[in-house]
Amino acid sequence: MSIATKDGNTTAPTRFLRGRHETYAYRRFGSGAARPLLCLQHFTGTLDNWDPAVTDPLASGREVILFDSAGVGRSSGKVPITIAGMASHALDFLDGLGLDGCDVLGFSLGGMVAQQMARDRPSMFRRMILVGTAPRGGEEIMRLEKPSLARHLSDPTLKGYAVLQKIFFAPTSSSQAAGEAFIGRLVQRTEDLDTASGPAVAAAQMAAFREWEQATGIRFAELKGIPQPTLVVNGIHDEMIPVSNSYRLSENLPNAVLLAYPDSGHGSLFQFHESFTRHAAAFLASDSPSAPY
Amino acid sequence: MSIATKDGNTTAPTRFLRGRHETYAYRRFGSGAARPLLCLQHFTGTLDNWDPAVTDPLASGREVILFDSAGVGRSSGKVPITIAGMASHALDFLDGLGLDGCDVLGFSLGGMVAQQMARDRPSMFRRMILVGTAPRGGEEIMRLEKPSLARHLSDPTLKGYAVLQKIFFAPTSSSQAAGEAFIGRLVQRTEDLDTASGPAVAAAQMAAFREWEQATGIRFAELKGIPQPTLVVNGIHDEMIPVSNSYRLSENLPNAVLLAYPDSGHGSLFQFHESFTRHAAAFLASDSPSAPY
Repeated sequence: MSIATKDGNTTAPTRFLRGRHETYAYRRFGSGAARPLLCLQHFTGTLDNWDPAVTDPLASGREVILFDSAGVGRSSGKVPITIAGMASHALDFLDGLGLDGCDVLGFSLGGMVAQQMARDRPSMFRRMILVGTAPRGGEEIMRLEKPSLARHLSDPTLKGYAVLQKIFFAPTSSSQAAGEAFIGRLVQRTEDLDTASGPAVAAAQMAAFREWEQATGIRFAELKGIPQPTLVVNGIHDEMIPVSNSYRLSENLPNAVLLAYPDSGHGSLFQFHESFTRHAAAFLASDSPSAPY
Repeated sequence: MSIATKDGNTTAPTRFLRGRHETYAYRRFGSGAARPLLCLQHFTGTLDNWDPAVTDPLASGREVILFDSAGVGRSSGKVPITIAGMASHALDFLDGLGLDGCDVLGFSLGGMVAQQMARDRPSMFRRMILVGTAPRGGEEIMRLEKPSLARHLSDPTLKGYAVLQKIFFAPTSSSQAAGEAFIGRLVQRTEDLDTASGPAVAAAQMAAFREWEQATGIRFAELKGIPQPTLVVNGIHDEMIPVSNSYRLSENLPNAVLLAYPDSGHGSLFQFHESFTRHAAAFLASDSPSAPY
Protein backbone atom coordinates (compact mmCIF):
# COMPACT_ATOMS: atom_id res chain seq x y z
CA MET A 1 0.00 0.00 0.00
CA SER A 2 3.04 2.32 -0.01
CA ILE A 3 2.27 3.56 -3.50
CA ALA A 4 -1.32 4.35 -2.58
CA THR A 5 -0.22 6.20 0.53
CA LYS A 6 2.30 8.21 -1.43
CA ASP A 7 -0.04 8.91 -4.28
CA GLY A 8 -3.43 9.23 -2.67
CA ASN A 9 -5.75 11.64 -0.96
CA THR A 10 -3.63 12.00 2.18
CA THR A 11 -0.84 13.79 0.32
CA ALA A 12 -1.99 14.67 -3.19
CA PRO A 13 -1.64 18.42 -3.78
CA THR A 14 -4.78 20.44 -4.37
CA ARG A 15 -4.85 21.89 -7.87
CA PHE A 16 -6.97 24.60 -9.43
CA LEU A 17 -8.58 24.75 -12.81
CA ARG A 18 -10.11 27.82 -14.41
CA GLY A 19 -13.37 26.75 -16.02
CA ARG A 20 -15.80 28.82 -18.03
CA HIS A 21 -17.90 29.48 -14.93
CA GLU A 22 -15.56 29.28 -11.93
CA THR A 23 -12.14 28.23 -10.69
CA TYR A 24 -12.41 24.71 -9.31
CA ALA A 25 -10.27 23.05 -6.63
CA TYR A 26 -9.48 19.42 -7.34
CA ARG A 27 -7.02 16.61 -6.76
CA ARG A 28 -6.01 13.87 -9.15
CA PHE A 29 -3.81 10.90 -8.45
CA GLY A 30 -3.20 7.36 -9.60
CA SER A 31 -2.53 6.11 -13.08
CA GLY A 32 -3.32 3.27 -15.40
CA ALA A 33 -5.05 2.34 -18.60
CA ALA A 34 -8.62 2.46 -17.28
CA ARG A 35 -10.83 5.50 -17.69
CA PRO A 36 -10.46 8.15 -15.00
CA LEU A 37 -12.92 8.01 -12.12
CA LEU A 38 -14.59 11.29 -11.19
CA CYS A 39 -15.66 11.37 -7.51
CA LEU A 40 -18.59 13.60 -6.58
CA GLN A 41 -18.92 14.46 -2.92
CA HIS A 42 -21.61 14.44 -0.24
CA PHE A 43 -23.50 17.24 1.54
CA THR A 44 -21.02 19.84 2.86
CA GLY A 45 -18.11 17.53 2.03
CA THR A 46 -14.86 18.83 0.57
CA LEU A 47 -11.81 17.17 -0.95
CA ASP A 48 -10.69 16.37 2.59
CA ASN A 49 -13.77 14.23 3.23
CA TRP A 50 -12.75 11.56 0.73
CA ASP A 51 -11.55 8.51 2.65
CA PRO A 52 -8.11 7.47 1.34
CA ALA A 53 -9.11 3.85 2.06
CA VAL A 54 -11.68 4.28 -0.73
CA THR A 55 -9.97 6.62 -3.17
CA ASP A 56 -6.44 5.23 -3.05
CA PRO A 57 -7.13 1.57 -3.92
CA LEU A 58 -9.30 2.78 -6.80
CA ALA A 59 -6.33 4.86 -8.03
CA SER A 60 -4.50 1.63 -8.77
CA GLY A 61 -5.16 1.19 -12.47
CA ARG A 62 -6.74 4.57 -13.19
CA GLU A 63 -6.65 8.23 -12.32
CA VAL A 64 -8.99 9.26 -9.52
CA ILE A 65 -10.24 12.84 -9.73
CA LEU A 66 -11.74 14.55 -6.67
CA PHE A 67 -13.59 17.78 -7.26
CA ASP A 68 -15.03 20.68 -5.25
CA SER A 69 -18.13 22.11 -6.91
CA ALA A 70 -18.67 25.88 -7.05
CA GLY A 71 -18.66 27.50 -3.62
CA VAL A 72 -17.34 24.38 -1.87
CA GLY A 73 -13.86 24.14 -0.33
CA ARG A 74 -11.56 26.41 -2.28
CA SER A 75 -13.62 26.52 -5.48
CA SER A 76 -14.85 29.99 -6.37
CA GLY A 77 -18.44 31.04 -6.79
CA LYS A 78 -21.70 30.29 -5.06
CA VAL A 79 -23.22 26.90 -4.31
CA PRO A 80 -26.13 26.35 -6.73
CA ILE A 81 -29.50 25.68 -5.16
CA THR A 82 -30.32 22.95 -7.67
CA ILE A 83 -28.71 19.65 -8.59
CA ALA A 84 -28.84 20.80 -12.22
CA GLY A 85 -26.71 23.80 -11.32
CA MET A 86 -24.13 21.56 -9.68
CA ALA A 87 -24.13 19.23 -12.68
CA SER A 88 -23.40 22.21 -14.91
CA HIS A 89 -20.31 23.04 -12.83
CA ALA A 90 -19.07 19.45 -12.90
CA LEU A 91 -19.39 19.36 -16.69
CA ASP A 92 -17.61 22.74 -16.92
CA PHE A 93 -14.80 21.24 -14.82
CA LEU A 94 -14.49 18.11 -16.99
CA ASP A 95 -14.50 20.25 -20.12
CA GLY A 96 -11.70 22.32 -18.59
CA LEU A 97 -9.71 19.15 -17.96
CA GLY A 98 -10.27 18.15 -21.58
CA LEU A 99 -11.95 14.91 -20.52
CA ASP A 100 -14.64 13.68 -22.86
CA GLY A 101 -15.28 10.38 -21.10
CA CYS A 102 -14.84 8.93 -17.63
CA ASP A 103 -16.45 6.76 -14.98
CA VAL A 104 -18.11 8.33 -11.95
CA LEU A 105 -18.49 7.58 -8.26
CA GLY A 106 -21.25 9.79 -6.87
CA PHE A 107 -21.83 9.63 -3.13
CA SER A 108 -25.02 11.03 -1.59
CA LEU A 109 -25.48 14.55 -3.05
CA GLY A 110 -22.78 13.58 -5.56
CA GLY A 111 -24.87 10.65 -6.75
CA MET A 112 -27.71 13.01 -7.61
CA VAL A 113 -25.31 15.26 -9.52
CA ALA A 114 -24.01 12.20 -11.39
CA GLN A 115 -27.54 11.20 -12.45
CA GLN A 116 -28.22 14.74 -13.69
CA MET A 117 -24.93 14.79 -15.62
CA ALA A 118 -25.79 11.46 -17.23
CA ARG A 119 -29.01 12.99 -18.50
CA ASP A 120 -27.45 16.29 -19.57
CA ARG A 121 -24.44 14.74 -21.34
CA PRO A 122 -25.17 11.03 -22.03
CA SER A 123 -21.77 10.48 -23.64
CA MET A 124 -19.73 11.50 -20.61
CA PHE A 125 -20.02 8.45 -18.34
CA ARG A 126 -19.22 4.89 -19.31
CA ARG A 127 -20.04 3.27 -15.92
CA MET A 128 -21.58 4.81 -12.82
CA ILE A 129 -21.35 3.99 -9.11
CA LEU A 130 -24.09 5.60 -7.03
CA VAL A 131 -23.66 5.29 -3.27
CA GLY A 132 -26.11 6.35 -0.56
CA THR A 133 -28.10 8.48 -2.92
CA ALA A 134 -31.60 8.96 -4.29
CA PRO A 135 -33.39 9.41 -7.60
CA ARG A 136 -35.31 12.60 -8.36
CA GLY A 137 -38.58 12.19 -6.50
CA GLY A 138 -36.90 10.14 -3.79
CA GLU A 139 -38.09 10.07 -0.21
CA GLU A 140 -36.88 11.32 3.14
CA ILE A 141 -33.71 12.83 1.67
CA MET A 142 -31.47 14.41 4.31
CA ARG A 143 -34.17 15.19 6.84
CA LEU A 144 -31.74 16.42 9.46
CA GLU A 145 -34.59 17.38 11.74
CA LYS A 146 -35.61 13.79 12.40
CA PRO A 147 -34.71 12.63 15.92
CA SER A 148 -32.20 9.96 14.88
CA LEU A 149 -30.07 12.68 13.26
CA ALA A 150 -31.04 15.81 15.19
CA ARG A 151 -29.90 14.37 18.49
CA HIS A 152 -26.33 14.17 17.17
CA LEU A 153 -26.37 17.43 15.19
CA SER A 154 -27.59 19.32 18.26
CA ASP A 155 -25.26 17.59 20.73
CA PRO A 156 -22.84 20.28 22.00
CA THR A 157 -20.30 17.62 23.06
CA LEU A 158 -19.84 16.47 19.45
CA LYS A 159 -17.53 18.62 17.36
CA GLY A 160 -16.36 18.42 13.76
CA TYR A 161 -15.70 14.92 12.54
CA ALA A 162 -17.24 13.38 15.69
CA VAL A 163 -20.65 14.31 14.29
CA LEU A 164 -19.85 12.54 11.03
CA GLN A 165 -19.01 9.38 12.96
CA LYS A 166 -22.47 9.44 14.53
CA ILE A 167 -24.56 10.25 11.48
CA PHE A 168 -22.64 8.34 8.79
CA PHE A 169 -22.48 5.07 10.76
CA ALA A 170 -25.02 2.81 12.44
CA PRO A 171 -25.48 2.95 16.21
CA THR A 172 -23.77 -0.41 16.79
CA SER A 173 -20.36 -0.80 18.37
CA SER A 174 -19.02 -2.38 15.17
CA SER A 175 -20.25 0.42 12.92
CA GLN A 176 -19.15 3.15 15.34
CA ALA A 177 -15.69 1.56 15.52
CA ALA A 178 -15.55 1.68 11.72
CA GLY A 179 -16.58 5.33 11.94
CA GLU A 180 -13.74 6.06 14.34
CA ALA A 181 -11.28 4.41 11.97
CA PHE A 182 -12.72 6.46 9.09
CA ILE A 183 -12.16 9.71 11.01
CA GLY A 184 -8.65 8.54 11.85
CA ARG A 185 -7.91 8.17 8.15
CA LEU A 186 -9.32 11.61 7.27
CA VAL A 187 -7.19 13.45 9.83
CA GLN A 188 -4.01 11.92 8.46
CA ARG A 189 -4.01 14.73 5.93
CA THR A 190 -2.58 17.72 7.80
CA GLU A 191 -1.42 20.16 5.11
CA ASP A 192 -2.96 21.90 2.13
CA LEU A 193 -6.37 21.41 3.69
CA ASP A 194 -9.61 22.49 2.13
CA THR A 195 -11.83 25.19 3.60
CA ALA A 196 -14.56 23.55 5.69
CA SER A 197 -18.13 24.21 4.59
CA GLY A 198 -20.16 26.74 6.55
CA PRO A 199 -23.90 27.35 6.92
CA ALA A 200 -24.25 29.00 3.51
CA VAL A 201 -23.00 25.87 1.74
CA ALA A 202 -25.32 23.70 3.83
CA ALA A 203 -28.34 25.93 3.17
CA ALA A 204 -27.87 25.99 -0.60
CA GLN A 205 -27.29 22.23 -0.81
CA MET A 206 -30.33 21.61 1.39
CA ALA A 207 -32.41 23.69 -1.01
CA ALA A 208 -31.14 21.47 -3.81
CA PHE A 209 -32.25 18.34 -1.91
CA ARG A 210 -35.74 19.76 -1.48
CA GLU A 211 -35.97 20.57 -5.17
CA TRP A 212 -34.67 17.07 -6.06
CA GLU A 213 -37.43 15.48 -3.98
CA GLN A 214 -40.01 16.90 -6.39
CA ALA A 215 -40.89 14.42 -9.10
CA THR A 216 -41.25 15.81 -12.60
CA GLY A 217 -43.83 13.87 -14.59
CA ILE A 218 -44.14 10.15 -13.88
CA ARG A 219 -42.08 9.35 -10.82
CA PHE A 220 -38.72 7.76 -11.67
CA ALA A 221 -39.55 7.62 -15.39
CA GLU A 222 -36.45 9.67 -16.27
CA LEU A 223 -34.25 6.88 -14.90
CA LYS A 224 -35.12 4.80 -17.97
CA GLY A 225 -33.03 7.32 -19.88
CA ILE A 226 -29.83 6.40 -18.03
CA PRO A 227 -28.68 3.22 -19.80
CA GLN A 228 -25.16 3.18 -18.36
CA PRO A 229 -24.17 0.08 -16.40
CA THR A 230 -24.62 1.27 -12.82
CA LEU A 231 -23.66 -0.09 -9.42
CA VAL A 232 -26.01 1.15 -6.67
CA VAL A 233 -24.62 0.81 -3.13
CA ASN A 234 -26.18 1.58 0.24
CA GLY A 235 -25.90 0.83 3.93
CA ILE A 236 -29.08 -0.97 4.93
CA HIS A 237 -29.64 1.33 7.94
CA ASP A 238 -28.93 4.68 6.26
CA GLU A 239 -30.73 7.42 8.24
CA MET A 240 -29.64 10.29 5.98
CA ILE A 241 -30.87 8.92 2.65
CA PRO A 242 -32.84 5.75 3.37
CA VAL A 243 -32.04 2.58 1.46
CA SER A 244 -35.54 2.65 -0.08
CA ASN A 245 -34.11 5.27 -2.45
CA SER A 246 -31.51 2.77 -3.64
CA TYR A 247 -34.32 0.24 -4.13
CA ARG A 248 -36.15 2.71 -6.36
CA LEU A 249 -32.97 3.46 -8.31
CA SER A 250 -32.35 -0.24 -8.92
CA GLU A 251 -35.95 -0.92 -9.87
CA ASN A 252 -36.10 1.91 -12.39
CA LEU A 253 -32.62 2.24 -13.84
CA PRO A 254 -32.61 -0.30 -16.68
CA ASN A 255 -29.10 -1.56 -16.07
CA ALA A 256 -28.19 -1.38 -12.37
CA VAL A 257 -26.87 -3.89 -9.86
CA LEU A 258 -27.78 -3.20 -6.23
CA LEU A 259 -25.35 -3.96 -3.42
CA ALA A 260 -26.50 -3.27 0.15
CA TYR A 261 -24.33 -3.66 3.23
CA PRO A 262 -25.45 -4.77 6.69
CA ASP A 263 -24.80 -3.03 10.00
CA SER A 264 -24.09 0.29 8.33
CA GLY A 265 -25.51 3.67 7.48
CA HIS A 266 -24.76 6.45 5.02
CA GLY A 267 -21.01 5.77 5.12
CA SER A 268 -21.18 2.09 4.13
CA LEU A 269 -18.46 2.58 1.51
CA PHE A 270 -16.09 3.81 4.22
CA GLN A 271 -17.09 1.14 6.76
CA PHE A 272 -16.59 -1.70 4.29
CA HIS A 273 -13.86 -0.03 2.26
CA GLU A 274 -12.07 -3.28 1.45
CA SER A 275 -15.22 -4.91 0.12
CA PHE A 276 -16.46 -1.73 -1.54
CA THR A 277 -13.24 -1.05 -3.44
CA ARG A 278 -13.05 -4.71 -4.50
CA HIS A 279 -16.59 -4.57 -5.88
CA ALA A 280 -16.09 -1.13 -7.42
CA ALA A 281 -12.86 -2.18 -9.11
CA ALA A 282 -14.44 -5.37 -10.49
CA PHE A 283 -17.46 -3.40 -11.71
CA LEU A 284 -15.31 -0.71 -13.36
CA ALA A 285 -13.03 -3.32 -14.94
CA SER A 286 -15.92 -4.85 -16.87
CA ASP A 287 -16.35 -3.90 -20.51
CA SER A 288 -19.75 -5.57 -20.74
CA PRO A 289 -22.75 -3.47 -21.80
CA SER A 290 -24.56 -5.18 -18.91
CA ALA A 291 -24.08 -4.07 -15.30
CA PRO A 292 -23.57 -7.47 -13.58
CA TYR A 293 -19.89 -8.05 -12.87
CA MET B 1 -14.64 -26.35 -18.10
CA SER B 2 -14.03 -29.99 -19.05
CA ILE B 3 -13.77 -31.06 -15.42
CA ALA B 4 -16.99 -29.31 -14.51
CA THR B 5 -18.79 -30.85 -17.46
CA LYS B 6 -17.55 -34.30 -16.53
CA ASP B 7 -18.24 -33.90 -12.85
CA GLY B 8 -21.32 -31.75 -12.68
CA ASN B 9 -25.08 -31.90 -12.74
CA THR B 10 -25.34 -32.96 -16.38
CA THR B 11 -23.77 -36.34 -15.72
CA ALA B 12 -23.48 -36.93 -11.95
CA PRO B 13 -25.28 -40.14 -10.97
CA THR B 14 -28.27 -39.89 -8.69
CA ARG B 15 -27.63 -41.56 -5.34
CA PHE B 16 -29.96 -42.62 -2.57
CA LEU B 17 -29.55 -42.31 1.17
CA ARG B 18 -31.70 -44.02 3.76
CA GLY B 19 -32.42 -41.44 6.48
CA ARG B 20 -34.36 -41.91 9.66
CA HIS B 21 -37.53 -40.64 8.03
CA GLU B 22 -37.24 -41.39 4.31
CA THR B 23 -34.94 -42.48 1.51
CA TYR B 24 -33.60 -39.34 -0.19
CA ALA B 25 -32.42 -38.94 -3.78
CA TYR B 26 -29.37 -36.73 -4.14
CA ARG B 27 -26.33 -35.93 -6.24
CA ARG B 28 -22.90 -34.84 -5.09
CA PHE B 29 -19.97 -33.77 -7.18
CA GLY B 30 -16.91 -31.59 -7.06
CA SER B 31 -14.13 -31.60 -4.52
CA GLY B 32 -11.86 -29.29 -2.60
CA ALA B 33 -10.96 -28.05 0.84
CA ALA B 34 -13.96 -25.75 1.31
CA ARG B 35 -17.07 -26.84 3.19
CA PRO B 36 -19.65 -28.67 1.10
CA LEU B 37 -22.47 -26.59 -0.34
CA LEU B 38 -25.99 -27.95 0.15
CA CYS B 39 -28.38 -26.75 -2.55
CA LEU B 40 -32.08 -26.53 -1.68
CA GLN B 41 -34.48 -26.40 -4.58
CA HIS B 42 -37.43 -24.30 -5.71
CA PHE B 43 -41.17 -25.00 -5.94
CA THR B 44 -41.74 -28.32 -7.76
CA GLY B 45 -38.06 -28.43 -8.75
CA THR B 46 -36.09 -31.66 -8.73
CA LEU B 47 -32.41 -32.50 -9.05
CA ASP B 48 -32.80 -31.99 -12.79
CA ASN B 49 -33.79 -28.34 -12.33
CA TRP B 50 -30.36 -27.29 -11.07
CA ASP B 51 -28.59 -25.35 -13.81
CA PRO B 52 -25.14 -26.85 -14.39
CA ALA B 53 -23.89 -23.33 -15.16
CA VAL B 54 -24.55 -22.55 -11.50
CA THR B 55 -23.77 -25.81 -9.74
CA ASP B 56 -20.70 -26.86 -11.69
CA PRO B 57 -18.50 -23.76 -11.23
CA LEU B 58 -19.33 -23.84 -7.52
CA ALA B 59 -18.14 -27.46 -7.42
CA SER B 60 -14.63 -26.22 -8.16
CA GLY B 61 -13.13 -26.08 -4.68
CA ARG B 62 -15.89 -27.86 -2.78
CA GLU B 63 -18.45 -30.61 -2.94
CA VAL B 64 -21.87 -29.51 -4.17
CA ILE B 65 -24.76 -31.55 -2.82
CA LEU B 66 -28.16 -31.45 -4.53
CA PHE B 67 -31.08 -32.93 -2.64
CA ASP B 68 -34.68 -33.96 -3.24
CA SER B 69 -36.81 -33.45 -0.15
CA ALA B 70 -39.40 -36.06 0.87
CA GLY B 71 -41.94 -36.76 -1.86
CA VAL B 72 -39.98 -34.86 -4.52
CA GLY B 73 -38.26 -36.51 -7.49
CA ARG B 74 -37.27 -40.03 -6.45
CA SER B 75 -37.23 -39.39 -2.69
CA SER B 76 -39.74 -41.47 -0.77
CA GLY B 77 -42.53 -40.15 1.41
CA LYS B 78 -44.97 -37.31 1.22
CA VAL B 79 -44.23 -33.63 0.69
CA PRO B 80 -44.70 -31.83 4.04
CA ILE B 81 -47.20 -28.99 4.07
CA THR B 82 -44.92 -26.77 6.17
CA ILE B 83 -41.43 -25.37 5.69
CA ALA B 84 -40.57 -26.76 9.12
CA GLY B 85 -41.42 -30.25 7.89
CA MET B 86 -39.14 -29.81 4.89
CA ALA B 87 -36.34 -28.51 7.14
CA SER B 88 -36.67 -31.64 9.26
CA HIS B 89 -36.10 -33.82 6.19
CA ALA B 90 -33.08 -31.81 5.06
CA LEU B 91 -31.50 -32.17 8.51
CA ASP B 92 -32.31 -35.89 8.48
CA PHE B 93 -30.53 -36.11 5.14
CA LEU B 94 -27.42 -34.23 6.36
CA ASP B 95 -27.32 -36.41 9.46
CA GLY B 96 -27.46 -39.46 7.22
CA LEU B 97 -24.52 -38.14 5.23
CA GLY B 98 -22.64 -37.61 8.48
CA LEU B 99 -22.23 -33.90 7.76
CA ASP B 100 -22.16 -31.70 10.82
CA GLY B 101 -21.39 -28.46 9.01
CA CYS B 102 -21.78 -27.03 5.53
CA ASP B 103 -22.71 -23.93 3.56
CA VAL B 104 -26.10 -23.63 1.92
CA LEU B 105 -27.59 -22.22 -1.27
CA GLY B 106 -31.34 -21.99 -0.86
CA PHE B 107 -33.32 -20.90 -3.90
CA SER B 108 -36.95 -19.79 -3.57
CA LEU B 109 -38.73 -22.47 -1.51
CA GLY B 110 -35.26 -23.79 -0.67
CA GLY B 111 -34.28 -20.44 0.83
CA MET B 112 -37.18 -20.68 3.26
CA VAL B 113 -36.12 -24.21 4.22
CA ALA B 114 -32.57 -22.94 4.76
CA GLN B 115 -33.77 -20.19 7.11
CA GLN B 116 -35.80 -22.71 9.09
CA MET B 117 -32.83 -25.09 9.31
CA ALA B 118 -30.60 -22.26 10.56
CA ARG B 119 -33.06 -21.66 13.38
CA ASP B 120 -33.57 -25.36 14.17
CA ARG B 121 -29.87 -26.30 14.08
CA PRO B 122 -27.77 -23.09 14.38
CA SER B 123 -24.49 -25.00 14.18
CA MET B 124 -25.15 -26.54 10.77
CA PHE B 125 -24.53 -23.61 8.40
CA ARG B 126 -21.41 -21.49 8.28
CA ARG B 127 -22.49 -19.20 5.41
CA MET B 128 -25.83 -18.95 3.65
CA ILE B 129 -26.87 -17.82 0.16
CA LEU B 130 -30.58 -17.05 -0.16
CA VAL B 131 -31.80 -16.44 -3.69
CA GLY B 132 -35.28 -15.32 -4.77
CA THR B 133 -36.80 -16.15 -1.44
CA ALA B 134 -38.74 -14.61 1.44
CA PRO B 135 -38.69 -14.41 5.21
CA ARG B 136 -41.52 -15.85 7.27
CA GLY B 137 -44.24 -13.21 7.08
CA GLY B 138 -43.13 -12.20 3.59
CA GLU B 139 -45.50 -10.85 0.98
CA GLU B 140 -46.99 -11.99 -2.30
CA ILE B 141 -45.18 -15.33 -2.20
CA MET B 142 -45.88 -17.50 -5.24
CA ARG B 143 -49.27 -16.04 -6.11
CA LEU B 144 -49.62 -18.04 -9.29
CA GLU B 145 -53.10 -16.68 -9.83
CA LYS B 146 -51.89 -13.16 -10.56
CA PRO B 147 -52.19 -12.23 -14.23
CA SER B 148 -48.45 -11.86 -14.92
CA LEU B 149 -47.98 -15.54 -14.00
CA ALA B 150 -51.40 -17.04 -14.71
CA ARG B 151 -51.29 -16.09 -18.37
CA HIS B 152 -48.24 -18.32 -18.86
CA LEU B 153 -49.35 -21.14 -16.56
CA SER B 154 -52.69 -21.37 -18.36
CA ASP B 155 -51.26 -21.04 -21.87
CA PRO B 156 -51.91 -24.37 -23.64
CA THR B 157 -49.12 -23.68 -26.15
CA LEU B 158 -46.47 -23.68 -23.42
CA LYS B 159 -45.32 -27.11 -22.27
CA GLY B 160 -42.80 -28.24 -19.67
CA TYR B 161 -39.68 -26.14 -19.50
CA ALA B 162 -41.17 -23.51 -21.82
CA VAL B 163 -43.33 -22.37 -18.89
CA LEU B 164 -40.24 -22.00 -16.70
CA GLN B 165 -38.66 -19.77 -19.31
CA LYS B 166 -41.65 -17.44 -19.12
CA ILE B 167 -42.11 -17.29 -15.35
CA PHE B 168 -38.47 -17.42 -14.19
CA PHE B 169 -37.28 -14.67 -16.55
CA ALA B 170 -38.30 -11.09 -17.25
CA PRO B 171 -40.41 -10.29 -20.32
CA THR B 172 -37.51 -8.62 -22.16
CA SER B 173 -35.77 -10.15 -25.15
CA SER B 174 -32.48 -10.29 -23.23
CA SER B 175 -33.97 -12.07 -20.23
CA GLN B 176 -36.02 -14.45 -22.38
CA ALA B 177 -32.88 -15.31 -24.37
CA ALA B 178 -31.15 -16.11 -21.08
CA GLY B 179 -34.12 -18.27 -20.18
CA GLU B 180 -33.84 -20.17 -23.44
CA ALA B 181 -30.14 -20.80 -22.77
CA PHE B 182 -31.02 -21.99 -19.26
CA ILE B 183 -33.52 -24.53 -20.63
CA GLY B 184 -30.90 -25.62 -23.15
CA ARG B 185 -28.52 -26.41 -20.31
CA LEU B 186 -31.13 -28.34 -18.33
CA VAL B 187 -32.02 -30.63 -21.22
CA GLN B 188 -28.40 -31.63 -21.72
CA ARG B 189 -28.98 -34.23 -19.02
CA THR B 190 -30.71 -37.10 -20.82
CA GLU B 191 -30.23 -40.15 -18.57
CA ASP B 192 -30.94 -41.06 -14.96
CA LEU B 193 -33.57 -38.34 -14.87
CA ASP B 194 -35.63 -37.45 -11.85
CA THR B 195 -39.39 -37.93 -11.67
CA ALA B 196 -41.08 -34.64 -12.54
CA SER B 197 -43.32 -33.16 -9.86
CA GLY B 198 -47.06 -33.57 -10.21
CA PRO B 199 -50.05 -31.71 -8.76
CA ALA B 200 -49.72 -33.34 -5.31
CA VAL B 201 -46.20 -31.96 -4.88
CA ALA B 202 -47.34 -28.51 -6.01
CA ALA B 203 -50.35 -28.51 -3.70
CA ALA B 204 -48.36 -29.47 -0.60
CA GLN B 205 -45.61 -26.94 -1.32
CA MET B 206 -48.22 -24.26 -1.99
CA ALA B 207 -49.74 -24.98 1.41
CA ALA B 208 -46.29 -24.51 2.91
CA PHE B 209 -45.98 -21.10 1.22
CA ARG B 210 -49.31 -19.99 2.66
CA GLU B 211 -48.26 -21.10 6.14
CA TRP B 212 -44.88 -19.33 5.74
CA GLU B 213 -46.65 -16.08 4.89
CA GLN B 214 -48.09 -16.01 8.40
CA ALA B 215 -45.92 -14.00 10.77
CA THR B 216 -45.41 -15.45 14.24
CA GLY B 217 -45.01 -12.70 16.81
CA ILE B 218 -43.29 -9.51 15.72
CA ARG B 219 -42.83 -9.63 11.97
CA PHE B 220 -39.29 -10.56 10.93
CA ALA B 221 -38.06 -10.59 14.54
CA GLU B 222 -36.89 -14.20 14.24
CA LEU B 223 -34.39 -13.16 11.56
CA LYS B 224 -32.29 -11.53 14.31
CA GLY B 225 -31.59 -15.09 15.45
CA ILE B 226 -29.80 -16.00 12.23
CA PRO B 227 -26.31 -14.53 12.70
CA GLN B 228 -24.65 -16.41 9.85
CA PRO B 229 -23.02 -14.30 7.16
CA THR B 230 -25.65 -14.33 4.43
CA LEU B 231 -25.74 -13.30 0.79
CA VAL B 232 -29.26 -12.37 -0.34
CA VAL B 233 -29.76 -12.37 -4.13
CA ASN B 234 -32.78 -11.45 -6.24
CA GLY B 235 -33.80 -10.42 -9.71
CA ILE B 236 -35.24 -6.91 -9.47
CA HIS B 237 -38.37 -7.85 -11.46
CA ASP B 238 -39.19 -11.17 -9.76
CA GLU B 239 -42.92 -11.86 -10.21
CA MET B 240 -42.93 -15.12 -8.24
CA ILE B 241 -41.40 -13.86 -4.99
CA PRO B 242 -41.07 -10.08 -5.28
CA VAL B 243 -37.75 -8.42 -4.49
CA SER B 244 -39.38 -6.62 -1.54
CA ASN B 245 -38.97 -9.91 0.31
CA SER B 246 -35.22 -9.75 -0.23
CA TYR B 247 -35.28 -6.16 1.05
CA ARG B 248 -36.96 -7.34 4.26
CA LEU B 249 -34.46 -10.19 4.62
CA SER B 250 -31.52 -7.80 4.26
CA GLU B 251 -33.01 -5.24 6.61
CA ASN B 252 -33.70 -7.75 9.36
CA LEU B 253 -30.97 -10.38 9.11
CA PRO B 254 -28.13 -8.89 11.17
CA ASN B 255 -25.36 -9.95 8.82
CA ALA B 256 -26.55 -10.03 5.21
CA VAL B 257 -25.31 -8.46 1.99
CA LEU B 258 -27.97 -7.85 -0.66
CA LEU B 259 -27.20 -8.27 -4.35
CA ALA B 260 -29.98 -7.51 -6.83
CA TYR B 261 -29.73 -8.02 -10.58
CA PRO B 262 -31.37 -5.88 -13.29
CA ASP B 263 -33.52 -7.09 -16.20
CA SER B 264 -34.29 -10.38 -14.49
CA GLY B 265 -36.89 -12.28 -12.54
CA HIS B 266 -36.98 -15.29 -10.25
CA GLY B 267 -34.18 -17.04 -12.12
CA SER B 268 -31.61 -14.24 -11.83
CA LEU B 269 -28.95 -16.72 -10.69
CA PHE B 270 -29.39 -18.67 -13.91
CA GLN B 271 -29.58 -15.57 -16.13
CA PHE B 272 -26.40 -14.09 -14.69
CA HIS B 273 -24.71 -17.39 -13.87
CA GLU B 274 -21.20 -16.10 -14.51
CA SER B 275 -21.65 -13.12 -12.21
CA PHE B 276 -23.63 -15.11 -9.65
CA THR B 277 -21.10 -17.92 -9.32
CA ARG B 278 -18.26 -15.39 -9.12
CA HIS B 279 -20.00 -13.56 -6.27
CA ALA B 280 -21.07 -16.77 -4.56
CA ALA B 281 -17.56 -18.22 -4.72
CA ALA B 282 -16.02 -15.01 -3.33
CA PHE B 283 -18.63 -14.91 -0.58
CA LEU B 284 -18.13 -18.57 0.35
CA ALA B 285 -14.34 -18.21 0.28
CA SER B 286 -14.41 -15.58 3.01
CA ASP B 287 -13.62 -16.67 6.57
CA SER B 288 -14.72 -13.34 8.01
CA PRO B 289 -17.48 -13.31 10.65
CA SER B 290 -18.91 -10.41 8.66
CA ALA B 291 -20.92 -10.95 5.46
CA PRO B 292 -19.30 -8.34 3.16
CA TYR B 293 -16.88 -10.02 0.77
